[in-house]
Amino acid sequence: MSQLYSSMKPTPMLKDELDIVIPTIRNLDFLEMWRPFFEQYHLIIVQDGDPSRTINIPKGFDYELYNRNDINRILGPKSSCISFKDSACRCFGYMVSKKKYIYTIDDDCFVAEDPSGKGINALEQHIKNLLSPSTPHFFNTLYDPYGDGADFVRGYPFSMREGAITAVSHGLWLNIPDYDAPTQLVKPLERNSRKVYLSTQLPILYVDAVMTIPKGTLFPMCGMNLAFDRELIGPAMYFGLMGDGQPIGRYDDMWAGWCVKVICDHMGWGVKTGLPYIWHSKASNPFVNLRKEYNGIFWQEEAIPFFQSVTLPKECDSVQQCYMELAKLVKEKLGKVDPYFIKLADGMVTWIEAWDELNAPKGTETNAPNAKDEKVTE
Amino acid sequence: MSQLYSSMKPTPMLKDELDIVIPTIRNLDFLEMWRPFFEQYHLIIVQDGDPSRTINIPKGFDYELYNRNDINRILGPKSSCISFKDSACRCFGYMVSKKKYIYTIDDDCFVAEDPSGKGINALEQHIKNLLSPSTPHFFNTLYDPYGDGADFVRGYPFSMREGAITAVSHGLWLNIPDYDAPTQLVKPLERNSRKVYLSTQLPILYVDAVMTIPKGTLFPMCGMNLAFDRELIGPAMYFGLMGDGQPIGRYDDMWAGWCVKVICDHMGWGVKTGLPYIWHSKASNPFVNLRKEYNGIFWQEEAIPFFQSVTLPKECDSVQQCYMELAKLVKEKLGKVDPYFIKLADGMVTWIEAWDELNAPKGTETNAPNAKDEKVTE
Repeated sequence: MSQLYSSMKPTPMLKDELDIVIPTIRNLDFLEMWRPFFEQYHLIIVQDGDPSRTINIPKGFDYELYNRNDINRILGPKSSCISFKDSACRCFGYMVSKKKYIYTIDDDCFVAEDPSGKGINALEQHIKNLLSPSTPHFFNTLYDPYGDGADFVRGYPFSMREGAITAVSHGLWLNIPDYDAPTQLVKPLERNSRKVYLSTQLPILYVDAVMTIPKGTLFPMCGMNLAFDRELIGPAMYFGLMGDGQPIGRYDDMWAGWCVKVICDHMGWGVKTGLPYIWHSKASNPFVNLRKEYNGIFWQEEAIPFFQSVTLPKECDSVQQCYMELAKLVKEKLGKVDPYFIKLADGMVTWIEAWDELNAPKGTETNAPNAKDEKVTE
Repeated sequence: MSQLYSSMKPTPMLKDELDIVIPTIRNLDFLEMWRPFFEQYHLIIVQDGDPSRTINIPKGFDYELYNRNDINRILGPKSSCISFKDSACRCFGYMVSKKKYIYTIDDDCFVAEDPSGKGINALEQHIKNLLSPSTPHFFNTLYDPYGDGADFVRGYPFSMREGAITAVSHGLWLNIPDYDAPTQLVKPLERNSRKVYLSTQLPILYVDAVMTIPKGTLFPMCGMNLAFDRELIGPAMYFGLMGDGQPIGRYDDMWAGWCVKVICDHMGWGVKTGLPYIWHSKASNPFVNLRKEYNGIFWQEEAIPFFQSVTLPKECDSVQQCYMELAKLVKEKLGKVDPYFIKLADGMVTWIEAWDELNAPKGTETNAPNAKDEKVTE
């Protein structure tokens, strides 16, 4: 009897409406720890690097796996917009998904614990964030007013309490913070560990808050622990041209974040940050990172003011239109900073063309090869 | 020997550069709880209501006390800009202070405990907030990058890491949240109590974060637990015309918050919110509050879009100039909403005139009565 009950698992939220996208170059043993939270969802694994290598995936997960050969076959010449030897390749998974929501996570991220010692179901918190509204137009000092036991404070205009649709949920990290190479080099031992509250003596910095990033404010979006509404903002979640053959790496998620935020602001959608935390297990090599980042560190000083001041025309009323307009402006304005941005702008256009090919409006035919028929599926 | 040591108290931060301003209508017994944190600072007590009433102040505090008669004598006809029978009168204390910093607190606010059960020195945290820079121009996802063990995350532009001068530190409240009357009426039992982490079983909602409110974003500023740099932003910290003889109450701090934020954004200064918490002991009467608030609830729907879109001319390079310009625009634009705003705009001008009279630039003479000579001083 108890055996029967234990095998009856409750259906998790959005089970058939969300894909988990994981870019990787190694065996996915990290999934064992996530089993209770992920096993009922569908995974899209994007294998980076050498396609002949076999990646082990723990038994019992429902997944499809794409390597570089699959990407080339499915996208043909348009595969040039997908990065190689860089986790930026994950955005291919967003493109081939047929679901409304995406959660993406790195393979060195584990289940974090909340201050009471309980394992955090990161995906569940992301889903809550996405399904409740955002507040991009006025700041609520008690953080997320839609959370349990929370509300809008005195002085919050009543006409704005309906909030905005949430497009993105950006989660954070315990243990190894997401620092750039210079900060890693200067603070090699720093951990996310400001205060110790608990008997476990585990150093934690756990900020129990979810908040909306206000309209007009850019933020550094990290792709390690990120969820979004693919149907809303998917076409803007392009992680750019990074890694092999490119003069830059580790700016894939930043690039996507700048574009996504500008477009969400234009469309009136919200972007949240804060909970949930994941446990980031290991710092990447700061020397390697510095080599990847140095152009980005330099270029972002021009790119950020560009994104801060960019205005999209009122006529742009779809994400695709916004993104094509942005590509044009990137070429025009940032092309002067470095020819790389001209190539990137072309990549942005190719990305949208490929997206539209694989994501034809419902009821219409598409000429694209059927991704589902060609993948490795468990 | 141990007695000698225990009587040697360390000098607290900014001891001679900060005044604590308290508006009150009752005996200040609440100060007993704050004694360890406040007793070395100077207090400015603004007695609201009947000036003939004697207010008891616990022994050992260094204070000056002003009642309505003092305000009238010191400001003469300009005393019309100071509200009566409303805690908005606290801003008179900002005006007569001679210090660089102000901390203001309500007399129903007590020492809160952090999650480890330790009493929070709210003033010390406010001082830390004010003395470290803000980040209004780009969002740091790990909150205050200047805190212990914190930093800027990957993708935060290096040119912006110097930050901006902090003008305001807005603290929060445990127990009774700062809700408007309609929310109080609908949720009479709600407490700031989302999660229970501790063995004490004390329900708490403690968010361990300080953050900068981004440039261009307005927030509902509560005057209950607030600190600011008086030399920087003091002339904009006018709490308006509220209470007796006015059609509105409980919008004093909101008004100041809108004005202060617009001017800080113009001047390039930062506004922080978050830690420290105080313990807010009792909810005010929601029926009385509704009577005070209902015009404000209605008018804020016009006032907030006004403040969201207002631009101050580049030529305004002092807070006084900004504030006079704002008064002009308030009269012009909000005067149409209700004649009250014309009176309020006049009050804003009178406030600046009175401020300048009492705060003549160093080395110059002033015709104003010397406040220090006429106050009740302990």
